[in-house]
Amino acid sequence: MAYEEFTIEGRNAVIEAFRSGRTIDKLYLLDGCQDGPLMTIRREAGKQDTVVRYVKKERLDQLSETGKHQGVVAVAAAYSYASVEDILQAARDRGEAPFVFLLDGIEDPHNLGAIIRTANLAGAHGVIIPKNHAVGLTAAVARTSAGALNYTPVAKVTNLSRTIEDLKKEGMWFVCADMGGTLMYQLDLKGPIGLVIGGEGEGVSRLVREKCDMTAAIPMKGNIDSLNASVAAGVLAYEIVRQRSL
Amino acid sequence: MAYEEFTIEGRNAVIEAFRSGRTIDKLYLLDGCQDGPLMTIRREAGKQDTVVRYVKKERLDQLSETGKHQGVVAVAAAYSYASVEDILQAARDRGEAPFVFLLDGIEDPHNLGAIIRTANLAGAHGVIIPKNHAVGLTAAVARTSAGALNYTPVAKVTNLSRTIEDLKKEGMWFVCADMGGTLMYQLDLKGPIGLVIGGEGEGVSRLVREKCDMTAAIPMKGNIDSLNASVAAGVLAYEIVRQRSL
Repeated sequence: MAYEEFTIEGRNAVIEAFRSGRTIDKLYLLDGCQDGPLMTIRREAGKQDTVVRYVKKERLDQLSETGKHQGVVAVAAAYSYASVEDILQAARDRGEAPFVFLLDGIEDPHNLGAIIRTANLAGAHGVIIPKNHAVGLTAAVARTSAGALNYTPVAKVTNLSRTIEDLKKEGMWFVCADMGGTLMYQLDLKGPIGLVIGGEGEGVSRLVREKCDMTAAIPMKGNIDSLNASVAAGVLAYEIVRQRSL
Repeated sequence: MAYEEFTIEGRNAVIEAFRSGRTIDKLYLLDGCQDGPLMTIRREAGKQDTVVRYVKKERLDQLSETGKHQGVVAVAAAYSYASVEDILQAARDRGEAPFVFLLDGIEDPHNLGAIIRTANLAGAHGVIIPKNHAVGLTAAVARTSAGALNYTPVAKVTNLSRTIEDLKKEGMWFVCADMGGTLMYQLDLKGPIGLVIGGEGEGVSRLVREKCDMTAAIPMKGNIDSLNASVAAGVLAYEIVRQRSL
């Protein structure tokens, strides 16, 4: 998983970068400057939860590579996605049955980051996310992954249910998290397994759920509906870890 | 756990509210207005991750209770803390051995909210947090608790190790999460138990750790240091749930 940083300088370039969905890790703005384009940049930064620093002109000159910063320098992050095959290869390389997380529509970068972190520590070989209706590998995800993004491959696929079908042909089993399922302790979660976690709002979508071999429920003893998505992923992943260690 | 909302109106009152640490749930600002005090308010809102809405004067007039909003109306939240005794009483009321979370310096509101949510669903009777060096019940915590704050009592104490000592006299056992500990599956986590979770950076502090009867480790099979604090709390809490259900 490549992780590099580069700077984007000048008002239009930075506005363009925000609008194209490019992830800005950090934004340096000339202190005291409040004209229209800079206000636009601040607004875009606010939407993306980008860290903004107000600095003196000297600091901007230092940060600038072109010398033409116009009062704004953005530091952008670039991550590259792995392929599903890379993930299977990682399992083969470790001589282990594949253990893969599939995330069906996680939208919160903190959740995605925490789940990649969990996947790494639970010994999973990778994480598969869908192209649409889900957060990608943004700077906030990288931050909350606490470095796991450098070790655990993340693949992005067009159609999650088709990927599940393909992986079934490779001998994998799929378990999805759903309240209506069988208590997780009563399922056999050993062997080559895909753990499917639903998004924060809707849970696992019907099409994806129908492809799964098992539905696992976490015991719920309280008053509210559901655990946070990254906590649910952690609890289920560690039930898999426990069963694999027996 | 009381949860009420009230509005704060006018520039100085809102700036004052932010600076006093009062939690602002939502901020309504007059669209297009960019003078000094409003910029200050926006900056404070940015620091607190407050939701800001830019609205027309008519909307502000509607929201205003005093009619003197000066272009700004803030909606603040108020939560009240429970006592440790309230938590023990909740266990007695349910005829269960006490199961309490103790958080030693959680600073991220998303983590605190997710942990209160987990405490609720794992059937814990309450959550104890320290007064200092930790986030309190802010609006972001309430949001990420997904309603759990209305059911699960949260108590705030001056000295966590002293609270542990007091609760030991009530017959409770304490287990803290730490990588150097015994694999959690090998510990007996039944009976009246306090689960101690450390903060994001430092983990459980030495003084608190020394008061604990057991140290539990989550199996770590990856490359990075530690799970997200709320995920670790979830994994350990559900190991307690599993053992209690055997």
